[in-house]
Amino acid sequence: MGLVFKDLCRIFSLPQFPQTLQKQPTIPTDNFTMELQQMDVTPANGGSDRSKWLLSSPDPPPPWQELFTSIKEAFFPQTKNRKAKERKALLFLQTLFPILKWGRNYKATKFKHDLMAGLTLASLCIPQSIVYANLAKLDPQYGLYTSVVPPLVYALMGSSREIAIGPVAVVSLLLSAMISKLVDPSADPVAYLRIAFTVTFFSGTFQALFGLFRLGFLIDFLSHAAIVGFMGGAAIVIGLQQLKGLLGLSHFTNETDVVSVLEAVAKALPHEWYPLNFVLGCSFLIFILITRFIGRRNKKLFWIPAMAPLFSVILSTLIVYLTKADKHGVKIVKHFKGGLNPISVHQLNFGGSYIGDSAKIGLICALVALTEAIGVGRSFASIKGYHLDGNKEMVAMGFMNIVGSFTSCYTATGSFSRTAVNFAAGCETVVSNIVMAITVLISLLLFTRLLYYTPLAILASIILSALPGLIDINEAYSIWKVDKLDFLVCVGAFCGVLFHSVEIGLLVAVVMSFAKIIISSIKPSTEVLGRLPGTDIFCNMVQFPVATKTPGISVIRINSGTLCFANANFIKERIVKRVRDENEIEESIRGGIRVMVLDMTNVMNIDTSGIHAMEELHKDLTSQGIELAIANPRWQVITKIKAAKFVEKIGPGWIFLSVSDAVETSLHLKINGLNNC
Amino acid sequence: MGLVFKDLCRIFSLPQFPQTLQKQPTIPTDNFTMELQQMDVTPANGGSDRSKWLLSSPDPPPPWQELFTSIKEAFFPQTKNRKAKERKALLFLQTLFPILKWGRNYKATKFKHDLMAGLTLASLCIPQSIVYANLAKLDPQYGLYTSVVPPLVYALMGSSREIAIGPVAVVSLLLSAMISKLVDPSADPVAYLRIAFTVTFFSGTFQALFGLFRLGFLIDFLSHAAIVGFMGGAAIVIGLQQLKGLLGLSHFTNETDVVSVLEAVAKALPHEWYPLNFVLGCSFLIFILITRFIGRRNKKLFWIPAMAPLFSVILSTLIVYLTKADKHGVKIVKHFKGGLNPISVHQLNFGGSYIGDSAKIGLICALVALTEAIGVGRSFASIKGYHLDGNKEMVAMGFMNIVGSFTSCYTATGSFSRTAVNFAAGCETVVSNIVMAITVLISLLLFTRLLYYTPLAILASIILSALPGLIDINEAYSIWKVDKLDFLVCVGAFCGVLFHSVEIGLLVAVVMSFAKIIISSIKPSTEVLGRLPGTDIFCNMVQFPVATKTPGISVIRINSGTLCFANANFIKERIVKRVRDENEIEESIRGGIRVMVLDMTNVMNIDTSGIHAMEELHKDLTSQGIELAIANPRWQVITKIKAAKFVEKIGPGWIFLSVSDAVETSLHLKINGLNNC
Repeated sequence: MGLVFKDLCRIFSLPQFPQTLQKQPTIPTDNFTMELQQMDVTPANGGSDRSKWLLSSPDPPPPWQELFTSIKEAFFPQTKNRKAKERKALLFLQTLFPILKWGRNYKATKFKHDLMAGLTLASLCIPQSIVYANLAKLDPQYGLYTSVVPPLVYALMGSSREIAIGPVAVVSLLLSAMISKLVDPSADPVAYLRIAFTVTFFSGTFQALFGLFRLGFLIDFLSHAAIVGFMGGAAIVIGLQQLKGLLGLSHFTNETDVVSVLEAVAKALPHEWYPLNFVLGCSFLIFILITRFIGRRNKKLFWIPAMAPLFSVILSTLIVYLTKADKHGVKIVKHFKGGLNPISVHQLNFGGSYIGDSAKIGLICALVALTEAIGVGRSFASIKGYHLDGNKEMVAMGFMNIVGSFTSCYTATGSFSRTAVNFAAGCETVVSNIVMAITVLISLLLFTRLLYYTPLAILASIILSALPGLIDINEAYSIWKVDKLDFLVCVGAFCGVLFHSVEIGLLVAVVMSFAKIIISSIKPSTEVLGRLPGTDIFCNMVQFPVATKTPGISVIRINSGTLCFANANFIKERIVKRVRDENEIEESIRGGIRVMVLDMTNVMNIDTSGIHAMEELHKDLTSQGIELAIANPRWQVITKIKAAKFVEKIGPGWIFLSVSDAVETSLHLKINGLNNC
Repeated sequence: MGLVFKDLCRIFSLPQFPQTLQKQPTIPTDNFTMELQQMDVTPANGGSDRSKWLLSSPDPPPPWQELFTSIKEAFFPQTKNRKAKERKALLFLQTLFPILKWGRNYKATKFKHDLMAGLTLASLCIPQSIVYANLAKLDPQYGLYTSVVPPLVYALMGSSREIAIGPVAVVSLLLSAMISKLVDPSADPVAYLRIAFTVTFFSGTFQALFGLFRLGFLIDFLSHAAIVGFMGGAAIVIGLQQLKGLLGLSHFTNETDVVSVLEAVAKALPHEWYPLNFVLGCSFLIFILITRFIGRRNKKLFWIPAMAPLFSVILSTLIVYLTKADKHGVKIVKHFKGGLNPISVHQLNFGGSYIGDSAKIGLICALVALTEAIGVGRSFASIKGYHLDGNKEMVAMGFMNIVGSFTSCYTATGSFSRTAVNFAAGCETVVSNIVMAITVLISLLLFTRLLYYTPLAILASIILSALPGLIDINEAYSIWKVDKLDFLVCVGAFCGVLFHSVEIGLLVAVVMSFAKIIISSIKPSTEVLGRLPGTDIFCNMVQFPVATKTPGISVIRINSGTLCFANANFIKERIVKRVRDENEIEESIRGGIRVMVLDMTNVMNIDTSGIHAMEELHKDLTSQGIELAIANPRWQVITKIKAAKFVEKIGPGWIFLSVSDAVETSLHLKINGLNNC
C-alpha cells in the first residue's frame, strides 16, 4: 500500500506546505483521493509542479552557439546609437585616432598644463631611458630613441590621457635576458641589436593583432597575484644586475638568476673592484632617495624627486669630467651617438635562424608590456573617471611599437613611475607626451656629446632608486591574508624569476594560476546541509551552526562547479560513505534514512562520466532502500540528465527546484510511507 | 532624508515579508521608528538578521588542512569496525591474499563450474594469447607465458571473481608502438624483448605503488568519452596492422597511423601479395563471425564462438600442414618455443640508455591496463552485486606484472572479451583463471610443436573478429546526444590514435579533457534572474519563461564556479554593460534601476583578481547611483571578501543569504527611498 501511494504521489505531484509545515506536519493518509483533488486546485504552490517547470525548460543554447555569440560580440561589438552613414568614415578615423576628436577642443590653457607636465616628464625620462637601454644591453641612445617615436605615435592613436610612453625596466630586462641567450651582446652587438628590433616589430604586431581581434582577455591570463610576484622578482633581479655598474665590474654573467649573479660578483670582486664607482653611486642613490622622501612628505614638491635623476646625471658627469675620475677606474658611458632616430627597417631580421625565437620573445614582451601599460592606464583613468577600452589601447601600443621598430626603438610601453609623475604634474591630455618626445629629441640633437663622461654607477643608482616601487610587499601580504593559494602563485612567480629566469617565472605563474583553477574546480568536496531556523534555506551545517538536520533525510551538496571524469567517482564514493555512516547512526534512533537529497546547485556542468557516477549512486542507494532526490539541477545538468534518460530512471517526481521542495515532499512521503507500513 | 533612512535600515536590519509581499507591497514610510521597533521584535525572520549568520560564520578550514585531510583519508582509511588485535595479522594476510578468505569455503560444486569455465576460457585464451603476442611484435610463446603466471598470481591476490587475466589487444598495441620507436624488433629482437620485460616490470611497479598509495583516482583522469574514442581508434589501428598478416606481406611499417599503414600496404601490395593468405584468413574470419552470430542468438551456445578461434587455428594448421601451403606463399608462425616460462630476471634492463623511456612506457601501459581491468572488473562485480576495491585490485595487478616480468611475461591485464566468456561459462571464483593457466601451461609443454604450421592469416582474422567489441558506436552516439564537448574529446582521442600515434591519442584525450574543465569553469557567463510566481525562488529568465522581473531591481547571477583572474574582468564588464542597458530601458519607464543584486551562489571560490573586479564593479555602479547587493556568497567567498575589507566597502547590510532576502530588502528601501525623495 505504501508503495502504491508513493508512486501515486510521484505521478500526481504532491503539494508543498512550506509555511504550514511546522504546524501541520502530518496529513491524514487514508483519504488521499481528497488530497489529490486539493492538488489540482492549488497547482502553482506545489513543489512538484515547480519541478515541471524545471523539467519542461527549453534546451540551453548549444556550446557552439555560445562560442559564436562570444566571438561575434568580440569582433563586431553592437553599439546601440548608430550614427548616420555619411559620418561613419569620420567616426572610424576618430576611433582609430582619438586625437581627431579631442584635438578640436584643445585649448591654450590645457597646453600650459601639458607643457609643464611634459617638461617634468622629460627630465625624468632622459636619465631613465639611458638606464633602461643599459639594462636592455643596448647603447644608451636607443633608450632615448624609444622615448621619441613611440610617444608621438601613441599621442595620435591612444586614448589614455596620463600614460607616459617609453622604455620600462621589466620589458628591458625581459628583452636582454632572452635575447642574450641567442646572441651575446658583447660579442656581436650588431646581431643583438637587429634581434632587438625584430622582437620589437613582433611585439607590436602581436599587440595590434590582439587589439584588432579583441583578444584583450589574453592579458588577464596573468593573475594579479602572479603579477605581484613576478614584478617583485624582476625588481630584485634588476637590482642585482646593477651590481655590475655600482661596483665597476668589467666581467659579469649573462644569466639573471640570483645564484649566478652573486657567484659572478664574488668571483670578480677581489680582482677588479674600484671603490670610487661604489662611493659615487651610493652617494647619489642616497641623494635621490632623500629627494623622494621630500616629495612624499610634501605633494607639491613632486618635481624635486622627478628632477633628481637628471640633476644627478649632470652633476656626476661634471664631477667626472672635471676630476678626470675615468682615469682612476670610474666606468663611464663612452658610446653615445647623438642625432635623430636612424631608420632601422633594413635591420629587421626576418630571414635568419632566430626568426622563431624572435617571435616567441616578441609575444612574451607584448603580453608583459600590455599588462603593465593597461594596468597603469586603467588605474589612472579610473581616478579621472573615464573608461579605457583595452582593445583600442592594444592597437595603439601595437602600432607604436611597429613604427618604433622601423626607427631604431626597442619595445616601449606605459611606465608606472613616469605616468605617476605626469599625473602629479597636472597633465591634461596626451600632449604632454608630445612635449616630452620633442624635448628628448632636442637633447638627442644637442646634448648627447656631453653625456660621454656620465659614470655608469649613477645609472645603476637611478635604476636602484626606482625599484622599491616594483616590490609591493603590502599587496603580497594582503594576498596572503585573502587567499593562501594565490599567495603560492605569487611566491612561485617570484622564486621562478629570482632563481631561474624571467621567462620561467612567467611560465610558473601562468601554469600555477591555471592549475589552481583546475584544482579548485575538480576538488571533490561535499557538504552536509541543514535548514536555517524559520526559513526554507538549507546551508552547510559546519558554516552555520544554527542549521538543523531533518530526521530521516540526508541533504548533501556537491561543492564543485563541475561533476566530471576527474572527480565524479570520488564524489560518488564520498556520498555513499557519508550516507552509510549517517544511516548507521539514524537507524538506531529513528529507523534509518529514507531519502537522500542531492543538492546540485553548484554543479554547473556534468559530463558522461558524471552521469555514470550518478547512475551508480542511484543504484547503490536503491540497494539500501534509500530514495535519491535531486534538487536544483542547473540548466546544462537537467538537459543532459534528461538526454541520458537518467530522469526516467530515478523518476521525474524526484527532481525538485529547491532543496526545501525536495525535503517537504520527502518528509510527506516518509510519514505517509511509515503510516502505511 | 532618504539617505539617512537607508543607512538606518542597513544598520538596524529590515525584516522580510516573503509571503505577504504581494498583498502588502508598501509599508507606511513616515513612521519608520515604529518599524524599527517591530524589527527588534522579530529578528529571526529578518533577511538582514540571516545575513548576520552569514557574516559571523566561522572561517573555513585552510586549503592545506583540506589537502592533509584528503591525503590522510587516502593513506589511512578509517574503518569503523576495528577487529581485535590478535586477529590483525590474519586479517592483513586475508586483505592481501583474498584466497585465504574464500578458499576456506570453497566447495566441489563450485569447482565443477570453475573447471568448465576455465577450460572454455583456455580454448579462447590460447589463440588470443598467440595473436596478441604477434601484435606486440613478440614471439607467440610470450603470449602464452603471459597467460600462465599473471593469472596464477592474480588468483592469489585479486578479489574479482570473473575477470580473465592475460594479454589484451590495446596494451599489446601500445607496447609495440612505443617500444618500436626505441628498438626495431626485426633488427634486434633480443633488445626489444628485454625492453618489453623492463616495461612490464615498471608497469607492475607503478600499479602496485598506485594501489599502495591509494591513488586509484589516477585512472579517472581518462574520461569516459576519452576511453570510448581511444578504444575505437585503437581498434581500427589494430585492424590495420592485421593487413600484414591477412595479405601475407613481408615488408610493413613500424608506424601505427592510418596514413603510414595504408601507404605501406599500397607500396607492398603489387609486389608481394599472396592471395592464398587472404582467402584463408577471410574464410576463417567469416566462420568466426558466423559462430558469434549463433552465440548471440542463443545465449546457451556461448561456447561455440568461444571455441571457434581454437578450432580455426587447429583446422587451418592441419590444412597448411597437409597441403604444404607454406611452400605456396602462405606465411606461417614458424618460431615457436615450447616449455615452461623461462626465468627472465637477468633480462631486465635497468642500466641501459632506455631506462627513462621504459619507465615512461611502463607508466602509460600501467594506466591503460588498469583502466581496462578495473572498468571490466567493476562492471561484472556490479552485475553480481559486490563491491570491488580499486586500490586493492591495483596492488594485485601490480604484483602479477612484477612477477610476470621475472618469468618472461609481458604486461597482462583483465580482458573484456574473455571476462565476458568466463562470466557466460558460469565461473564461480577466480579458480577458473587457475584452471585456464594450467591448461595453457600443459599446451605449452605438449602442443607447441604442432603450432609451427599455423598460418599468420588466421591469427589476423582472430584479432579482426575481436575488434568490433572495442568500437562502441552506440556509446559515442549517446555521448554526442548528452554532451557535445565530451564528444569532441572522444573524436579527438579517436583521431589522435588513428592519424598520429597511440600515445598522442592518449595525450590528446587527457589534455582535451582538462582543457574542457578549464573552459567550463572560467567560461564568463552571466544570467538575468526573475522570480518564479508564488515562490521565493529566482531563476534564469530564459530557462524559465514563467519567471518575472522585479521593477527597479536587476538580479544577475554569475554562472561560473570561480571568479578568478581569467574571467573576472570579462564578467565585470558584462555585468556593467547589462546593467547599463537595463537601466536605459527602465529609466524611461520607472526611473531606472536602484539596486543590482549579484547572486554569487555558483561562485565557489574567488581570488584577488576577482575581488578587484568586484571592487571596480561596485565603484562603477555607485557612480551610476546604483547600490550593489550580494546574495548568497559561499563560505570561501564571504571569508575572502571579509578579509579583503570589501564587505566594509559595500556595507554589511548589502550582503544577504538569498536573492529573495536581497530583493525584499531592496524593494523596501527603494519604495521608502522614492517616497522620501
